Amino acid sequence: METILLALATLDTPAALIDLPRMQHNIERMQKRMDAFGVRFRPHVKTSKCAPVACAQLAAGAQGITVSTLKEASQFYADGITDILYAVGMTPGKLPQVLALRRRGCNLKIITDSVASAMAIAAFGNEQDEVFEVWIEIDSDGHRSGIKPDDPALLEVGRALHGSGMVLGGVMTHAGSSYDFDTPEALCAVAEQERLACVHAAERLRAAHLPCPVVSIGSTPTALSAERLDGVTEVRAGVYVFFDLVMHNVGVCTANDIALSVLTTVIGHQVEKGWAIVDAGWMAMSRDRGTQNQKRDFGYGQVCNLQGEILPGYLLSGANQEHGILSREGTPDLDIATQFPVGTQLRILPNHACATGAQFPEYHAVSENGEISTWERIHGW
Amino acid sequence: METILLALATLDTPAALIDLPRMQHNIERMQKRMDAFGVRFRPHVKTSKCAPVACAQLAAGAQGITVSTLKEASQFYADGITDILYAVGMTPGKLPQVLALRRRGCNLKIITDSVASAMAIAAFGNEQDEVFEVWIEIDSDGHRSGIKPDDPALLEVGRALHGSGMVLGGVMTHAGSSYDFDTPEALCAVAEQERLACVHAAERLRAAHLPCPVVSIGSTPTALSAERLDGVTEVRAGVYVFFDLVMHNVGVCTANDIALSVLTTVIGHQVEKGWAIVDAGWMAMSRDRGTQNQKRDFGYGQVCNLQGEILPGYLLSGANQEHGILSREGTPDLDIATQFPVGTQLRILPNHACATGAQFPEYHAVSENGEISTWERIHGW
Repeated sequence: METILLALATLDTPAALIDLPRMQHNIERMQKRMDAFGVRFRPHVKTSKCAPVACAQLAAGAQGITVSTLKEASQFYADGITDILYAVGMTPGKLPQVLALRRRGCNLKIITDSVASAMAIAAFGNEQDEVFEVWIEIDSDGHRSGIKPDDPALLEVGRALHGSGMVLGGVMTHAGSSYDFDTPEALCAVAEQERLACVHAAERLRAAHLPCPVVSIGSTPTALSAERLDGVTEVRAGVYVFFDLVMHNVGVCTANDIALSVLTTVIGHQVEKGWAIVDAGWMAMSRDRGTQNQKRDFGYGQVCNLQGEILPGYLLSGANQEHGILSREGTPDLDIATQFPVGTQLRILPNHACATGAQFPEYHAVSENGEISTWERIHGW
Repeated sequence: METILLALATLDTPAALIDLPRMQHNIERMQKRMDAFGVRFRPHVKTSKCAPVACAQLAAGAQGITVSTLKEASQFYADGITDILYAVGMTPGKLPQVLALRRRGCNLKIITDSVASAMAIAAFGNEQDEVFEVWIEIDSDGHRSGIKPDDPALLEVGRALHGSGMVLGGVMTHAGSSYDFDTPEALCAVAEQERLACVHAAERLRAAHLPCPVVSIGSTPTALSAERLDGVTEVRAGVYVFFDLVMHNVGVCTANDIALSVLTTVIGHQVEKGWAIVDAGWMAMSRDRGTQNQKRDFGYGQVCNLQGEILPGYLLSGANQEHGILSREGTPDLDIATQFPVGTQLRILPNHACATGAQFPEYHAVSENGEISTWERIHGW
């Protein structure tokens, strides 16, 4: 621990730290669960956007990755990962980029949820003599995109793709609404709803003599709560790799599982208010206030000491661009300047790891023996 | 306009657009106002973090810049800007970086609001044989950092700096609470409070035979609302260069002054809900919901057509990482798929320009004649 503290003291703040033993534990926990179910696991790398993190997931047994942008697809392919699902609905303007990646050898799969898009994909594929692999996005909970499993459009989309020579690779869904629950019973129910919706869509396609090899579902809460995965061939999840305070409130991790934190330095005080001012504002933490409407509101983050131990009751209660306001819940800590003098280094656990990570060009990955590696992450589109 | 539309059609989405005629108008409006008051203007470049934007501000008459990170200081100095104020309280760990920049010729000024920090700066300066220029941060509204103008600590800090051979450059404050008001009367009052606090602090220092050449105040709302600036030597402001929906609600700009928008593409629909799904989610817009508690809540942004004309009532009502939900306020637009077919390009005005800009590695600056320049921005620390 002494070695780690000395190493951290050399870093400029704010900095994004990955606790590698925690990350590895999170990766193994999910992979073991998926292995026990006998399904493939395809992590969503939009959380880390970082090649060494994705490599650790693949090394543990993951098969392929999910990405949220074509820039991720391009960069992870450059890093040697070939089996990639781009899990945002395809729009015609992005097809040339998809084509270019596939021509370079990337096994990039795309998704759609409308006849119009399916026809545009097929037309462009036929024009370019390219057989795109397309999965149909299913709406399992009404939270965003996708075709309802019972919608007649499902078969129309399937026929538009299969009938025009594209590969109809399967169906996929994401129960994003699982983030709104916080009991094991409710999470089990959402997981089962997600499974049933996707399996039902697959059965309808097959009954109509359309191929549907892949049935892909997932979100971190449902992946960790599902009691059965019959009919499912693969699961996707992203934020489990780091976890965060939102997931802690959902109930699928403890605060001590959270592998991402922001290293910050105390730069001043307002003693009569019980405030310490730190150099992690919203530019470092992100503006994500995901715990605001959950059972416990952590402000802009939970304060930990440099060792990473939680300091109960101390939160980042406010944030400007480069200033965070650190205070104690309830009665102000009028001794805060003595407790956290100027120059004190602290770690802040984030509300939402995907949003906080995105604020940084790189992570500092801290191993058990105190070695710190700088890992670049992908920014932009 | 036709040329602009053709040029925009070539961009990958989401993309951050700067409307250059609007930006230039905003720059000139502020500079003319400051010139009329006869005060120096030192723009805060944390909004754009972009050299060509800062150069346009300096070309219009600004003198020096304000930065929020030492990375900005370093990069803007590399771009040829030498007069730089780092407006976040100095912590001892960052002094070596400040020293290195000053040794390379950067006229970098730092700030403090405590005796402990002032003594640490002086000790390091004396040890390194460097005369740091330090300004004292004043708290004019209780919103964050700074010494209250009447606090005895003000003179202690002044003496700690001046008495140990550092340059006591002046006093500075930022009335961040001005963002909470939305009437000209209230904004005038906050501006006057900001001015009085800073001038009073300067007078106390001078009465104690301490130097205080600079009296620096500012925020976009107060800079645009102040009726007098007697005793003030310079003003700082940042977001005015682009403006945003928060500033529109505050009342210091119109929606048609907003120079930053996010170019996005429609990727799907949920017709029965009146939703169009676009490829600008919170990763593009940021998680900033600054209008949430203002007189008008714009969700994640105001929707405009590709020409930049506001489409009244259409907002980005929800956002996931790479998905935005576009809908009409009030009754759902059940014709939304016809109105905005897949592939339609739109522009979204952001809640908070500083936060939205930070999500992008570069801006696409669009001139009046449709030329598009790619301008890099600074990311990280």
